[in-house]
Amino acid sequence: MEIAAAIPPERLLLGPGPSPVHPRVAEAQARGMIGHMDPWFLGAADEVSTMLRAVLRTQNPLTYAVSGTGSAGMETAVVNLVEPGDTVVVGVNGVFGGRIADTARRAGAEVVTIEEEWGRIIPPERIEEALRAHPGTRFVAVVQAETSTGAWQPLEEIGRLVADTEALLLVDAVTAVGGVPLETDRWGLDVVYAGTQKCLSVPPGLAPITFSAKAEAVIERRSSPVRSWYLDVAAVRKWWGSERTYHHTAPISALLGLHEGLRLVLEEGLERRWARHAEVGALFQEHVVDRDATLLAQEGHRLPQLTSFAWPDGVDEGAVRRRLLADHGIEVGGGLGNFAGRAWRVGLMGEGATHANVDRLLDAVDEILEG
Amino acid sequence: MEIAAAIPPERLLLGPGPSPVHPRVAEAQARGMIGHMDPWFLGAADEVSTMLRAVLRTQNPLTYAVSGTGSAGMETAVVNLVEPGDTVVVGVNGVFGGRIADTARRAGAEVVTIEEEWGRIIPPERIEEALRAHPGTRFVAVVQAETSTGAWQPLEEIGRLVADTEALLLVDAVTAVGGVPLETDRWGLDVVYAGTQKCLSVPPGLAPITFSAKAEAVIERRSSPVRSWYLDVAAVRKWWGSERTYHHTAPISALLGLHEGLRLVLEEGLERRWARHAEVGALFQEHVVDRDATLLAQEGHRLPQLTSFAWPDGVDEGAVRRRLLADHGIEVGGGLGNFAGRAWRVGLMGEGATHANVDRLLDAVDEILEG
Repeated sequence: MEIAAAIPPERLLLGPGPSPVHPRVAEAQARGMIGHMDPWFLGAADEVSTMLRAVLRTQNPLTYAVSGTGSAGMETAVVNLVEPGDTVVVGVNGVFGGRIADTARRAGAEVVTIEEEWGRIIPPERIEEALRAHPGTRFVAVVQAETSTGAWQPLEEIGRLVADTEALLLVDAVTAVGGVPLETDRWGLDVVYAGTQKCLSVPPGLAPITFSAKAEAVIERRSSPVRSWYLDVAAVRKWWGSERTYHHTAPISALLGLHEGLRLVLEEGLERRWARHAEVGALFQEHVVDRDATLLAQEGHRLPQLTSFAWPDGVDEGAVRRRLLADHGIEVGGGLGNFAGRAWRVGLMGEGATHANVDRLLDAVDEILEG
Repeated sequence: MEIAAAIPPERLLLGPGPSPVHPRVAEAQARGMIGHMDPWFLGAADEVSTMLRAVLRTQNPLTYAVSGTGSAGMETAVVNLVEPGDTVVVGVNGVFGGRIADTARRAGAEVVTIEEEWGRIIPPERIEEALRAHPGTRFVAVVQAETSTGAWQPLEEIGRLVADTEALLLVDAVTAVGGVPLETDRWGLDVVYAGTQKCLSVPPGLAPITFSAKAEAVIERRSSPVRSWYLDVAAVRKWWGSERTYHHTAPISALLGLHEGLRLVLEEGLERRWARHAEVGALFQEHVVDRDATLLAQEGHRLPQLTSFAWPDGVDEGAVRRRLLADHGIEVGGGLGNFAGRAWRVGLMGEGATHANVDRLLDAVDEILEG
């Protein structure tokens, strides 16, 4: 069998993820292998937790990186909190809310969905109503940055609402973290999971996650085993915590990459990084509106790091995307689900969020559209 | 917050995994990032599947790498095959058989365990009995290479037994693959999952897996949803297969590392690699017996790549291991479970399986024991 080495072509990654990776992170992933029980590596894992607390703005002791991609973070959050028959309330205004609902059903939950039109946010009043209608709700889940629509869900009011109840607030911050303000402790978020390959600019493969004391107490009170062995927090935390008990082999290279990526985020400063995303995203959105495109997320609630929009009638969005990749080496995303065949999703995330990238993308698009 | 770059100290990895990584694999993981839906990357993923078929000795179309470590491969196998109330038969002669049983219970199975003393294999007769006692068994599971004991489970007879029934044969080959002969198709194995960080010498983070047509048919006949969204084969195979539908973001860097690691395995040749492990492992086992150590796996069924043994009374195994790491930079494993505080587990796996490493380890041990 003759298979050549896989050397990826050069790409400018301006889709919904992965985002461009800093050379320092790439280099960190190539460092010498070391054991997952090695005292040195356990120290490095502690530093990852410490830096994740800084990035997620939390003091939660139970803060670590799940050994899987963002969706494994979602599943970790859901399966550890749900016991069969529990009611959960899930805001569904795009693909990722739907995914939480699906996962919760598989875990045995009675799922109450709050459906909103794609591109719109979940109004806090609707969550309040659902909580009133379903006392004893285990958790409320919302997606802070809906990668399928570009909608930016506000969390502060929902945080206050849920804090007044026994329910937990679960937040999907996969595309949010590092790109827009996220205040786990201040806003009263109980479980937050994130991805690495968006605004943190680290390769996919890990899912940062954090659990509040209120969430940990729910896990400790469980009367049935968690349906997943691999994602069982009560066991996993014995490796991440002070017991240092073997559970599964951690993805060592990926964790070294995340360690370096988090160092880069903190070197820049979180607020500065949020401001950079805000500025670059707003600029890009102005420019696409100038080109008669329609932004698909609700006004006032548009993520800067992920813009979802439709070109005017007559533009063959798929053909333009394919030429952008083939002739210019630039990746942007097409629509998912309801937006398939209609939307573009442009990510200006992490290392990708620069003025130069906005110019390069728009120049290439203009050339294709005018060609 | 001042956290320095995480530069691992130099280690010779001769424990139960991870094993040493070839520089070509490390370099492959540091290559430019690319999208998981990029046509180029989909081609590279196809090549990973093709090479995995060669390494697992199968023609199964459904052969891919799970986005998680070996235990995620185990969970994928179990949760996709089990529906609540199904009976499964699991051979338990060490930690990893116990883990399969635990995972199957969480998935709702009635688990019949065949318990054997640690270090011994599961006798085929006992599986035959269990199948007779439990008609309609969904699957029989055994561990080919029990990493906790060093026992090498023969599979051919069990394969014949199970093939005559409606049950599936599920094999944990995490530590086996690339180190000892494994013939998925010829032996009639229905689901085989593996790890990357053992005899393939690729960093942890992915779990190769393959499903026979008989196993795929069981998945297609399911009447209840798989309890895991992340590991749901029916959805995941749409990305790995020709539909190329997005499911979750693949761990891109890790897959590029696996691609290069599999190229190295096939360059050496599987049979040659098995022979190298056999020779180096046998040599090491002779040498430890010469030093009055007791091999803990059953005679005639000892893995060459993973040797489990106890030092004579009076040797403080933990102290020697700690000095080996601190003074010589060599990692070996301690005992797990029943063997904790008693066994050493020495892995001569993948890049680590060399005569030079045996010498280096024994010289260091002799120095410490004589010191």
